[in-house]
Amino acid sequence: FVNGKVCKDPKLAQANDFFFAGLDKPGNTANALGSRVTQVNVAQIAGLNTLGISMVRIDYAPGGQNPPHTHPRATEILTILEGSLYVGFVTSNPDNRLITKTLQKGDVFVFPEGLIHFQQNVGYKNAVAIAALSSQNPGVITIANAVFGSKPAINSNVLAKAFQVDNKVVNQLQSQFWMDNN
Amino acid sequence: FVNGKVCKDPKLAQANDFFFAGLDKPGNTANALGSRVTQVNVAQIAGLNTLGISMVRIDYAPGGQNPPHTHPRATEILTILEGSLYVGFVTSNPDNRLITKTLQKGDVFVFPEGLIHFQQNVGYKNAVAIAALSSQNPGVITIANAVFGSKPAINSNVLAKAFQVDNKVVNQLQSQFWMDNN
Amino acid sequence: FVNGKVCKDPKLAQANDFFFAGLDKPGNTANALGSRVTQVNVAQIAGLNTLGISMVRIDYAPGGQNPPHTHPRATEILTILEGSLYVGFVTSNPDNRLITKTLQKGDVFVFPEGLIHFQQNVGYKNAVAIAALSSQNPGVITIANAVFGSKPAINSNVLAKAFQVDNKVVNQLQSQFWMDNN
Amino acid sequence: FVNGKVCKDPKLAQANDFFFAGLDKPGNTANALGSRVTQVNVAQIAGLNTLGISMVRIDYAPGGQNPPHTHPRATEILTILEGSLYVGFVTSNPDNRLITKTLQKGDVFVFPEGLIHFQQNVGYKNAVAIAALSSQNPGVITIANAVFGSKPAINSNVLAKAFQVDNKVVNQLQSQFWMDNN
Amino acid sequence: FVNGKVCKDPKLAQANDFFFAGLDKPGNTANALGSRVTQVNVAQIAGLNTLGISMVRIDYAPGGQNPPHTHPRATEILTILEGSLYVGFVTSNPDNRLITKTLQKGDVFVFPEGLIHFQQNVGYKNAVAIAALSSQNPGVITIANAVFGSKPAINSNVLAKAFQVDNKVVNQLQSQFWMDNN
Amino acid sequence: FVNGKVCKDPKLAQANDFFFAGLDKPGNTANALGSRVTQVNVAQIAGLNTLGISMVRIDYAPGGQNPPHTHPRATEILTILEGSLYVGFVTSNPDNRLITKTLQKGDVFVFPEGLIHFQQNVGYKNAVAIAALSSQNPGVITIANAVFGSKPAINSNVLAKAFQVDNKVVNQLQSQFWMDNN
Repeated sequence: FVNGKVCKDPKLAQANDFFFAGLDKPGNTANALGSRVTQVNVAQIAGLNTLGISMVRIDYAPGGQNPPHTHPRATEILTILEGSLYVGFVTSNPDNRLITKTLQKGDVFVFPEGLIHFQQNVGYKNAVAIAALSSQNPGVITIANAVFGSKPAINSNVLAKAFQVDNKVVNQLQSQFWMDNN
Repeated sequence: FVNGKVCKDPKLAQANDFFFAGLDKPGNTANALGSRVTQVNVAQIAGLNTLGISMVRIDYAPGGQNPPHTHPRATEILTILEGSLYVGFVTSNPDNRLITKTLQKGDVFVFPEGLIHFQQNVGYKNAVAIAALSSQNPGVITIANAVFGSKPAINSNVLAKAFQVDNKVVNQLQSQFWMDNN
Repeated sequence: FVNGKVCKDPKLAQANDFFFAGLDKPGNTANALGSRVTQVNVAQIAGLNTLGISMVRIDYAPGGQNPPHTHPRATEILTILEGSLYVGFVTSNPDNRLITKTLQKGDVFVFPEGLIHFQQNVGYKNAVAIAALSSQNPGVITIANAVFGSKPAINSNVLAKAFQVDNKVVNQLQSQFWMDNN
Repeated sequence: FVNGKVCKDPKLAQANDFFFAGLDKPGNTANALGSRVTQVNVAQIAGLNTLGISMVRIDYAPGGQNPPHTHPRATEILTILEGSLYVGFVTSNPDNRLITKTLQKGDVFVFPEGLIHFQQNVGYKNAVAIAALSSQNPGVITIANAVFGSKPAINSNVLAKAFQVDNKVVNQLQSQFWMDNN
Repeated sequence: FVNGKVCKDPKLAQANDFFFAGLDKPGNTANALGSRVTQVNVAQIAGLNTLGISMVRIDYAPGGQNPPHTHPRATEILTILEGSLYVGFVTSNPDNRLITKTLQKGDVFVFPEGLIHFQQNVGYKNAVAIAALSSQNPGVITIANAVFGSKPAINSNVLAKAFQVDNKVVNQLQSQFWMDNN
Repeated sequence: FVNGKVCKDPKLAQANDFFFAGLDKPGNTANALGSRVTQVNVAQIAGLNTLGISMVRIDYAPGGQNPPHTHPRATEILTILEGSLYVGFVTSNPDNRLITKTLQKGDVFVFPEGLIHFQQNVGYKNAVAIAALSSQNPGVITIANAVFGSKPAINSNVLAKAFQVDNKVVNQLQSQFWMDNN
């Protein structure tokens, strides 16, 4: 789950082992969330192995969002290139404080390691952000997909009690996530 | 968010700085989830500071559950003292595989760092587990409470899109979590 | 000496990679020390690899003991399920302070990383403890066995000077440890 | 030299503790190097303390450069927002291989921890890059300034032998760096 | 037990914060062990704080020894400046293999973290070694002193069972260590 | 670039896996710098793998120097066995303070991780130092060789601007380093 990559002989390392192209290309946001994350981590740049950092570009259509998620092994620092985002994270138990900010172009925000966070485009145009994460393999857990769209599904009785609603609501939630949604 | 404790002068350390009593006492499970977590971390045992480990006891009424949650800074290893639990965790994106097991007394299970996991009592009697976590301050994020019960609440439009349901369902979910639920 | 395990492809991970059964079974304490440690670390649960935690069950006959030992790579947190234990650890040079406590069922105690510690059953019945360690491969060094029972033996002149006794006493001590004693 | 910051009580943390504004503003490149680094680390965002990541914006006038330097405690991952950069790093002894690449908008490149690296604007327009570093306090050592512009100066005999030139060349080099050049 | 030092403001750091004098001075070996360790760690050089390394000089009279001990938080690498040493370490359970070597001037040997190790002067002259440890505060646990000379003493019944000898032998061992022996 | 070594099966480990001979032998200082570094790291002692420490011996002819260099992954602690050294390191930007000391036999000095440092023999005789580094694979970057002697060379326009001198001076500097100089 953490790091099964093998290091290349340093004598054979080439510039392309430290290189990735295309982070200027808008991601396709024609999906239910209206957003797209383009990842640049050890899967794309082998030279990042053991180095503890990676990068992403996030595109948001108007009203699009990067839904509540966590990175199990990384803190995130994000800056906005275009547009305006409402962003937030929730502190851990018992307080579950929601800390939010509406960000403009050039603003920078930090999402501490492991906390649930999100971004929503609150402008009329596309928004673009660049973010960096403190792991070469940070992982992403989209809360809705992991809870209501796991394969196989979590037993609906478990979720009904967890979310304090009846099974019908859980089934409705689960039915949304049997799509391929990265 | 991580570790603001100060170390005591080692010459003044006493046995009680490394001690906690009462983990044999059943927690009160008379709550909506039918479970109770009793924590023994650096907040209870100051001598754990910097040492990277802590412990919990979890009590489950019949049908009770420790709902889907994450520990942002720890892996968990759990063993069952009494009863029978259905446990599981969900792997990170893009697969979101649900890995589950029904555990009996004496079984041990591991929940890797930062992943969403849960336990549900599937027996007819109370269940009891002892678990250890790989941090003196592991943190707990109960998904339902953090997403639908944060203070203040996450904007319902954000959650409606994230969970692909209409605002009415979100409002129903949010209305369940304005209670004190640790 | 630390971690030569290889991670499995996460896509192939199964519940059994995170599972161990039998920690409810009493260990056989019919030995010279009157105790038995049942280990659950990366050797028993491959899924613990890189995750920094493990667990043990310790059984003690009346008068039995887990003799003075260290874990070269881990702190230990222990709770008593049954019985009563006299436990202690010794701080490092130059003070070598002995910190002890008599523990009852439900008590929790911490043995900091690398320090010499022990537990002795001081009740009339069997005692049982569950402990967790802050490494998937913590290692155990039983002082008596490592010092007086190594294979081959440490030169008795070295030990006579170290313990400030004559060779006869050292030979007597060494003669006790040519048994298989885990 | 590493991390003398104190963590704030989490209950008092506010959004502004995780926020910085202005990374969209071009830095002033009217200096000898034709470049400017705008830093966003723990000195600007207190909430980054202990979280192991930071960000910078780098502006380059045509022909401007971010001269050979190291980060003693961080790897860097950089992406180009505007323009075209010739970038490179040199591997450690004994090979001292120079690994270079000419990057365009949207390209990403990695500079491994502690290695000497540089970027030079090789286009006709201003260039802009966003980079992230794997420390909240990565440090920067500009080689020319540290070697030839330290306060006080390194003895010129030391440098003459190190660089295998006569003292006159060293004095010429040293005379360039008694300015304020970050 | 680990690191309670506070970092100085880097702007106020002076050369003396990184300096110690006198490691060329022979330590006084006129004691029961015929050896003396001169430590240079964060207690002597404040600038070592957080930097993860320290140094010692060890003097051995003919026949003198650095008795079996562990460093709870460090690996040791040692080189011999003068004389000849018989050195060894014991691997952890269950094998407790003794790995030894007789070293001459210029030889280097490694004692892995947390393992019991010793050195004995097997030449006719004084011996001198310089060793480095992978922690600014490695700690030392001399086995004989910690086990038989702790303050207060470990209950002799505990030790009699641990070492499989009668109480008289334990008392004899304990009576040797009520001296000040670093 | 960091650690591609594989651990040996502990059961097969031998004393020679932790051993190196010859650190008493003077290194050959008949070269342009008048110095020689003899390394004892994981490349010489396989048993150092993962243990975070290594050692070097440095010989200096009269007037010889260990030129300005960094260790990208280690702090260094050095003691002088023979002779007299002028040593120093330069703090990071923006202050670039030079911290120096003239050391005599028995003196100890610390060079913090990643900072540029050097030693020069300022006595009339050979000087010898033993140093330890906080990594089993610390790496060495000799500034002059990496900047002016990389293979291939850094474009002289880049260096001319970085060092604020004309290309002729850069070419002169570069011409010195097309030798094999470790």
